[in-house]
Order: sequence, then C-alpha cells, then structure tokens
Amino acid sequence: MTSPDRPAPLAPFTADDYRARMARAAEDADAAGLAGVLVAPGPDLVHLTGYRPTAATERLTLLVLRAGHDPVLVVPALEAADAAHAAGAGALTLRDWTDAADPYALSAELLAPDGRFGVSDNTWALHLLALQQRLPDTSYASLTEALPMLRAVKDAAELARLAAAGAAADATYEQILKVRFSGRRETDVAADLASLLREHGHEQVDFTVVGSGPNGANPHHEAGDRTIGHGDMVVLDFGGLKHGYGSDTSRTVHVGEPTAEEQRVHDIVREAQEAGVRAVRPGAACQDIDRAARAVITGSGYGERFIHRTGHGIGVTTHEPPYMIEGEEQPLVEGMCFSVEPGIYLPGRFGVRIEDIVTVTPDGGRRLNTTARELAQVE
Amino acid sequence: MTSPDRPAPLAPFTADDYRARMARAAEDADAAGLAGVLVAPGPDLVHLTGYRPTAATERLTLLVLRAGHDPVLVVPALEAADAAHAAGAGALTLRDWTDAADPYALSAELLAPDGRFGVSDNTWALHLLALQQRLPDTSYASLTEALPMLRAVKDAAELARLAAAGAAADATYEQILKVRFSGRRETDVAADLASLLREHGHEQVDFTVVGSGPNGANPHHEAGDRTIGHGDMVVLDFGGLKHGYGSDTSRTVHVGEPTAEEQRVHDIVREAQEAGVRAVRPGAACQDIDRAARAVITGSGYGERFIHRTGHGIGVTTHEPPYMIEGEEQPLVEGMCFSVEPGIYLPGRFGVRIEDIVTVTPDGGRRLNTTARELAQVE
Repeated sequence: MTSPDRPAPLAPFTADDYRARMARAAEDADAAGLAGVLVAPGPDLVHLTGYRPTAATERLTLLVLRAGHDPVLVVPALEAADAAHAAGAGALTLRDWTDAADPYALSAELLAPDGRFGVSDNTWALHLLALQQRLPDTSYASLTEALPMLRAVKDAAELARLAAAGAAADATYEQILKVRFSGRRETDVAADLASLLREHGHEQVDFTVVGSGPNGANPHHEAGDRTIGHGDMVVLDFGGLKHGYGSDTSRTVHVGEPTAEEQRVHDIVREAQEAGVRAVRPGAACQDIDRAARAVITGSGYGERFIHRTGHGIGVTTHEPPYMIEGEEQPLVEGMCFSVEPGIYLPGRFGVRIEDIVTVTPDGGRRLNTTARELAQVE
Repeated sequence: MTSPDRPAPLAPFTADDYRARMARAAEDADAAGLAGVLVAPGPDLVHLTGYRPTAATERLTLLVLRAGHDPVLVVPALEAADAAHAAGAGALTLRDWTDAADPYALSAELLAPDGRFGVSDNTWALHLLALQQRLPDTSYASLTEALPMLRAVKDAAELARLAAAGAAADATYEQILKVRFSGRRETDVAADLASLLREHGHEQVDFTVVGSGPNGANPHHEAGDRTIGHGDMVVLDFGGLKHGYGSDTSRTVHVGEPTAEEQRVHDIVREAQEAGVRAVRPGAACQDIDRAARAVITGSGYGERFIHRTGHGIGVTTHEPPYMIEGEEQPLVEGMCFSVEPGIYLPGRFGVRIEDIVTVTPDGGRRLNTTARELAQVE
C-alpha cells in the first residue's frame, strides 16, 4: 500500500447524504443571491443525486434546487424508472414528461419567472436557450461562475475515496516502472497503464498519456504509434475513477541514463512542483500555487516553456474547479483537492511533468500521491 | 451479407469534403438569416471538420463558420497539435489560446457583435453564457431549432457508411438468434451483442438493450441482472458506430412458444412499423410517420402504451434530427435517414419494439435493416 493513511471504509452514499448536499447547494445559491440551481446530467447531478443517466441527450433531464422548495428532478418518462433507482431518488420528487409534452413549460413552472439561476456548466445550449426563451426575465450564470466551490470542498467520505483512487494510481506507477519501454509503442505502455488502473479497482480509465521523446512536448498528447527508444524521456499521466472518485498523477521517466540537460529540466520541474505543494495552506489564493510553481521555472529560464496552468480540482470528475491559475483569487479551504502539475515542454525534443493530487489540511498540503518524484530510469 | 445493395467503397473523407460541408453550413445559415454557426466539440464538429477532441471540457474549442469568411477553429493551445491532425484541418484556420488568454474575447472578435448565431445543441452553457455576456447584442438559437437539417440529408458516401453499419447490425441479430437466452442474464446476452457488433466492424458500441419480461416494458432499460426465463418476451435494441456512422435496430424475440396475447401485441407493433415505413416519401412530414405508426397501435387499443416518438435521425450519432414526432412538420427529403420504431409497453409484464433504419428515396422508404420482423423464437 502506498497510501499514507489507512482508508476509511467506503460505505455507499445514502439518500440522506444527497438530501444534505442538495440542501446545501440550495442554501449556497440563496446566499449568493440566486433563485436556485439547475443541474443537467453530468458530474454535478451525480454529486447531488447519485443519478447518472446513460447519456446526456436532447431530452431534458433537469434537477431544480431552490431554497424553501423540495428538490425536483424533471426527467423523460422513458428514463423515470432508472432515475427512481438512483441512490438520491428518495430525497427528491420526480416529474416525468412524455415525448408529447413540453419539458420546458414543465420546468418553467418550477422556476421564479424573474430569478437568476446557477446552471451546471455542461448543460446543453439547446436546453438553456429554451429556458431563456420561455422565461425571458430569468437570467443565468454557470455554476463555475456563480457557485464555483459547490463541489470543491470534500467531506471525509469523499476524501477517503480520493485517497483510495490516489493509492491505486500510485500502485499502478510502481508497477509500470517494471515493464519494458524500449522497443514498444506508446500505445502498448498506455494499455498496460489502463489494465493496471483497472486491476487496482478503477471502474473507469479517463486518460493514459504516454508522451515519449518529442511527443512529451505536447502536454495533451495521449499515446501514439511512436516506438519508444533508448534515451527517450517519457511523460506518463494517467487516471480515472475508482468508487466514483478521481485519480490523476504524472511522472516523467527516462529510458536509460539521462543527459545532464534532461536531468536538469527534470530537477527544475521537481523543485517547481515541490514549491507549489509547499504553498498550499488554508487561506492562500489558488493563483498563489500557480505563482509559486511558476516562479521556479521562470527563474530557471524556462518560463515560456510552461504553457499551462499549475492545477485543477478533482472529485467525481478528474478535472473541475478550483483551478490553480493566475487570476484565480479563490482562497483555499480545508478539504479542497486539486492537482499540482507544473511542466516544461521543449518542442521537437521532450517534455517533463510531475503531478500529485494534494488536499488542503490545517497544516498545509497533504499529497494523495506519494510515489518517488526523482527521475526514474526504465528499460 | 444482408445489405440489399453492394456498398460503395468507403474512402476516407478529405479536407475538400469538410471544406464543402463547412461552406454549405455557412450558406445555409446565411439563407436562414443567421450571422453564422458556432460549433463546440461533438457530432457537429466531427461532421464539419473530422475533429474529435478527447473530451469536451471547460476549455473552449469553437468552430466559427460565417458566409464570406474562412472557417476558424478556436482551440486551446494544449490541443492545437491534435486539432491540426484532423482530416478537415486543411480547410480551416486554427486560432489557439493559452491558459493565460481569454478565449471568449478571441471568439468575440470573430463574431458579428449584433448577429444571431446558430450554436451546436450540446455546446456547454458555460461557454454560451460567456459569449452572451461578452457580446450582449448577439442572440443565439440551437442548431436543432435554427438549422435542424444541417446533418440530416446524407450524401452517397454517408449512405454507404450507414448501409454498412446497418448490415453489421443485421448480421449481429442473425447470430444472436442462435445463442442461448434461457437461464442466462440479460447482461450476458448484452455482452454477446457488443462482441458481435465489434466483430462486424463497429468501433463503438452505444447501447445493447436486453429487456426481458417486465424489463422490456421500460423502453430505456439497458440490461440488468435479471435471468431470462422460458416464456419471456425479450426486447433487443442495439447499435453503435462503424466507420464513424451509426447503426440502430430492434427486434423482439420470445423464449419458446409465445402466448396468443404476446403474438397479438407483436403483430400490432409489426403492422405499425410497416405502416410507418410505408408512409415514408419525399415531401411527407416527419409527423406523418409517427401518425401512421401510432394509428395502428391506437386503433388496436394500445395507444396509451406507445409512450415514445416513432423515430429519430441517425448519422455520425445514433440519435439526431429529424425526429418522427407529432408536431414536427419538417418535410422528408431524399437522403434523410432515421429510425421507425414503434413499441407497446405493458408495465410489469413485457414490451415489444421493432425498429429499422430507413432512408428516403424518390420511391419511398428503403430499409437499411432487413432482417425478418416476424416474432422469432429463441432458446
């Protein structure tokens, strides 16, 4: 086990858990001057109700949360039976509609006609435009803008899940160090990563980046047909969901002995990542984490080669607020979880990225990924 | 081979194909009084550019099409290299933005400040709201509302792909009739369907519904732990993507000898499906197909048990306009492809659905699924 703490038992979330989350969301919305929160299928709906429809479609499914009103889930009649089986179904009222009915008229009855509503980021434009048209005096803000921290602070049960996912990713990394890299394609190593993540309990693999040599200089390169060779730097960045919560870790390894330059670039990124994690404490701004990591890289002359933000939140998705980026003044709060993942990318040559998930504790940042961050050599 | 026609060779789409599609979309928008079309990651973007990002995220990717302007794809810098590899990349200009930049300001420069734009249905509310805020005098309509038929009429190359996908689904059905149903779980048969679809060339399996006994009465039931027994009706509804184009067919089978009532309900649905397909001709309204199928079921006393629309379009997705539903007056045009899939659902007992993909020809509807529609008995 690479997890530093013994994980808490992972009891399933109950209708009461979801009731409490929905009540808090409605209260937070009220406190923020919103008439309510509207949530379409996606991670917010999973977080608030435990309901994950097979797919988001042109048929409207919409959770309506308003302070002083019971939660209502508008749902296509075809999907009502599935929705009724969600863990949070006992905490809400289902209002189903058939294809002959107008789901926007039904939803409009549940809204304040001149209210301002927070709407889940990934709600389809199709649905938002229909509501705007139906109730022209309403206004809307994305949840990221209106209630950015709705899912950001994790409770103990959620932290236990994130720690379990992180430990599984760490175990995956320990094992991938033992496989052969040289002479195999990136996609082969990526397949190994995916199998290992599943072996260690992930029900969903979201990404298995294997960026060898010049491919490592494209931070979003996934894995391709390139054959990994002796002397390559290889960026590994992988994660997914275990028990519904995310993992995401990156390490950069070297096939054989690194050059002095490769070692130096790796050292800089490692120091930058360390500086980012050290800056984590309750009350620090998100941008402070980015600044701390970026200062190291800029001070070493590679500022132009660190071409992305330093981190992102993680929870029921592998990519969510809060974002560690210049301009984000949101203060860190105990229980927030996010990545710290600086990198340096040298086009046409190689890249280096090091990433851990970190949670905010009263004493500072605690890593949920704890594998060695020194440049490992693989075969 | 169950495909009625010899399929045309499936040459890859070229940059010229995408250039032509983008030009037509811009012209159609202009003709509809729109200042342009905005397309986020999803099926419209695949159709227009061949570009399919790994995931839709909070980082804006947006195709801007305007008559008289070259197509522009706004893309995160991190993903620019991937976008540049899309088959349609040669027909558009990439405008990339880094995390420090404001992608909405960049997009706003490409829009008419007081124009009305069609926006892809699944564009995230996060992005639409940011554009609305940035350019308060613009207005927006979903593409389904503004240009509902943007992808609806398929050309010969697309029809060849849909026919190939349909033939693969038909081959799957022929083979599933030979597997054992009785004593196995729905999920086992669903796994068989998925393997067969892949074996017959599907790169993506979207759904494998196996609704046995009472589960068949929930039209969106997927497949569960229920063990299929002798005497069960079993609704099968499966499909996915082959060469990027969709398949979707349903048949209802019986384990052993059906009762007179089961046979009768099946006969009614079969007659309704036949009536729906017979109503297909250029110039008929979409709702006419629904009415034709529904009239048979209503006339037989089961009108209340046909709880969904009669069909949906298919193309680069398995679910898109045009919709065969009451109120949809869109005339059918040669080259449109859609499902005709009436059903009867008896809660707590069983369901029946029969579905073929049909394309509009000058002579009427031509089925792309041609397996027998009589009630098959399985073991």
